[in-house]
Amino acid sequence: MAEILLATEHHSESCVRIEPGIHLRIGEMLHEFFPAPRKVVLLSDRNVAPLWAGPVEESLAQAGYELKDVLIPPGEEAKSLTMLGTLWDRCLDFGLDRSSVLVALGGGVVGDLGGFAAATLQRGIAVVQIPSTLLAQVDSSVGGKTGINRSAGKNLVGAFLQPRLVLVDPTLLGTLSDRQFRAGLAEVIKAGFIRDPRILSSLEDVADLEQLRADPDRVLELVERSVRMKAEVVQQDERERGVRAHLNFGHTIGHALEAADEYRGPLHGEAVAIGMVAACFLAVDLGLASPDLVGRMTRLLERFELPVHTPHSPADLLPFIGRDKKRQRGKSRWIVVPEIGRAEVVEDPPEESVFRALEAIQRS
Amino acid sequence: MAEILLATEHHSESCVRIEPGIHLRIGEMLHEFFPAPRKVVLLSDRNVAPLWAGPVEESLAQAGYELKDVLIPPGEEAKSLTMLGTLWDRCLDFGLDRSSVLVALGGGVVGDLGGFAAATLQRGIAVVQIPSTLLAQVDSSVGGKTGINRSAGKNLVGAFLQPRLVLVDPTLLGTLSDRQFRAGLAEVIKAGFIRDPRILSSLEDVADLEQLRADPDRVLELVERSVRMKAEVVQQDERERGVRAHLNFGHTIGHALEAADEYRGPLHGEAVAIGMVAACFLAVDLGLASPDLVGRMTRLLERFELPVHTPHSPADLLPFIGRDKKRQRGKSRWIVVPEIGRAEVVEDPPEESVFRALEAIQRS
Repeated sequence: MAEILLATEHHSESCVRIEPGIHLRIGEMLHEFFPAPRKVVLLSDRNVAPLWAGPVEESLAQAGYELKDVLIPPGEEAKSLTMLGTLWDRCLDFGLDRSSVLVALGGGVVGDLGGFAAATLQRGIAVVQIPSTLLAQVDSSVGGKTGINRSAGKNLVGAFLQPRLVLVDPTLLGTLSDRQFRAGLAEVIKAGFIRDPRILSSLEDVADLEQLRADPDRVLELVERSVRMKAEVVQQDERERGVRAHLNFGHTIGHALEAADEYRGPLHGEAVAIGMVAACFLAVDLGLASPDLVGRMTRLLERFELPVHTPHSPADLLPFIGRDKKRQRGKSRWIVVPEIGRAEVVEDPPEESVFRALEAIQRS
Repeated sequence: MAEILLATEHHSESCVRIEPGIHLRIGEMLHEFFPAPRKVVLLSDRNVAPLWAGPVEESLAQAGYELKDVLIPPGEEAKSLTMLGTLWDRCLDFGLDRSSVLVALGGGVVGDLGGFAAATLQRGIAVVQIPSTLLAQVDSSVGGKTGINRSAGKNLVGAFLQPRLVLVDPTLLGTLSDRQFRAGLAEVIKAGFIRDPRILSSLEDVADLEQLRADPDRVLELVERSVRMKAEVVQQDERERGVRAHLNFGHTIGHALEAADEYRGPLHGEAVAIGMVAACFLAVDLGLASPDLVGRMTRLLERFELPVHTPHSPADLLPFIGRDKKRQRGKSRWIVVPEIGRAEVVEDPPEESVFRALEAIQRS
């Protein structure tokens, strides 16, 4: 079992454990951190619960926890004020107190909503994450960002709450669709470009998605490397005042692409893939990186059938840039990778350069 | 000007400044912490804004801030999920970003709702409090507890967010009703009993409420002492895992009294006054304090026409005890004052003792 510990300057601690089959042992794992008896709310969605909730509940019950299930509908729409209110009330009606724990079993939506509910119930109870998608395993379940969406944009309200425990079980990826797996892979590739080049060489060792999914040891290694990278960054800068911004590589345009299609277009990971290509073009245009960078990025994305182009024109996308919360006082902010394994921030690059980068990703 | 600094183990800092007339200088004060230009949301309610918002806005505009007013209806009903959603959206539509500041001008409701909105907008922006009631000045504006109500109870969801700056201006108390002033005084008296006996002797030097309100130097001194006491306690234990629980003296029964009347009965401070009497009776019953304690408490409360009895019987109240979030795993928790100036926690006292304490406060 790999164990990755994360301690922030705000005195919160998080422990990520990665092992095939680990979700079956949630009861004993939880007991280490939060001895039974106590109340546990298990949050999941109607897609994930039928696949994976049974043994999780069994393990928790066997360990002596008093259990309450809460199921939400699958999909981004669940990250709403209404659903947050419903979740709060289900937990409060269950008699949850400050010593209770919320376990979030699912993808990014379950993790973000569950984390935010936990951050705010009784002004903060513990949350444990059992991420069921690759995206959640390598990215959203680690680092403590939680939140919901408002009409003005995604994740505009939320809180920082480090999950006390994250159980990453790659066997849960077995039921994931290829499309969802690919979307998570975009964040793995991001981790490689900004900080851990060995991720890229490992990915370049396999021919395609099928071969990768058939190689559980490699998947495990990639998950572990990605989580380790993220934990290191978050430990240095939980509240994104410095280096954590590097994790937004590909996200300036990724968010714009999602917003331009009103969040009904590409998956987050797909949008990030295209956004990383744009960020590579921008870095080259600014003279910060060599043209090889674009080649390596697009070849890797294409190997796994991730998109590298968008139908949207620069004019379509420009209004959506710099409208997310990463901007500081109205500026747009980009992350570039001058050389593989090292990222940096570019504040407000010249509009012509941004325009050319957007032209370069438009499907001709 | 008195300045009280508070730094928590979670690396958040708060600065409380107390001075008559200080609200007129919000612009320059804010500039010290958050230099203009930037966006500032001024939250207030429809009762307070006509009295005090004008000069605050003027001072902020003069200092170069881009300003947006948000007004909420007065009263506890505004601490709702709906109002939180509305406030979020007003702030987001204004284009608020992570560098923006929310200024909460009002009583406990404005402070709690505004603080919670700030804690969650963009996962946390800065909040500045300008408390306009005595209760908010000596208690709720300091210490970083924020939140809203759910049908299961008050303040059941929320967050900890230390206000970066609190401007306490006793001149704002000039328009407060006697009833509201008294309610705040209950928390001042609490501060005296649990930690600063000089508060009690100062209060015992005046004959009644009228004489106290006519003595601004004394009011200033009492406010300052109460704030200092609270800041010391919060600095030691922001998240209420230890000594902060002492601030709940009078609140076990206070909360029960409020809940028994569905929050349409006594004001919070009035309920706390009766609750402190109950806690004194309990301490005497348990042999932890001398009977003099009850006498000094009731005489002081009666001097300022605060209630010391309730029409509710023990049977009415018992179901409402231990149902707030201070309980740990279903236990009820009391704060007692064995000697004036020193508080301690009593976990789950015998039911007969609780019953007798409740009998003692029932109006015969």
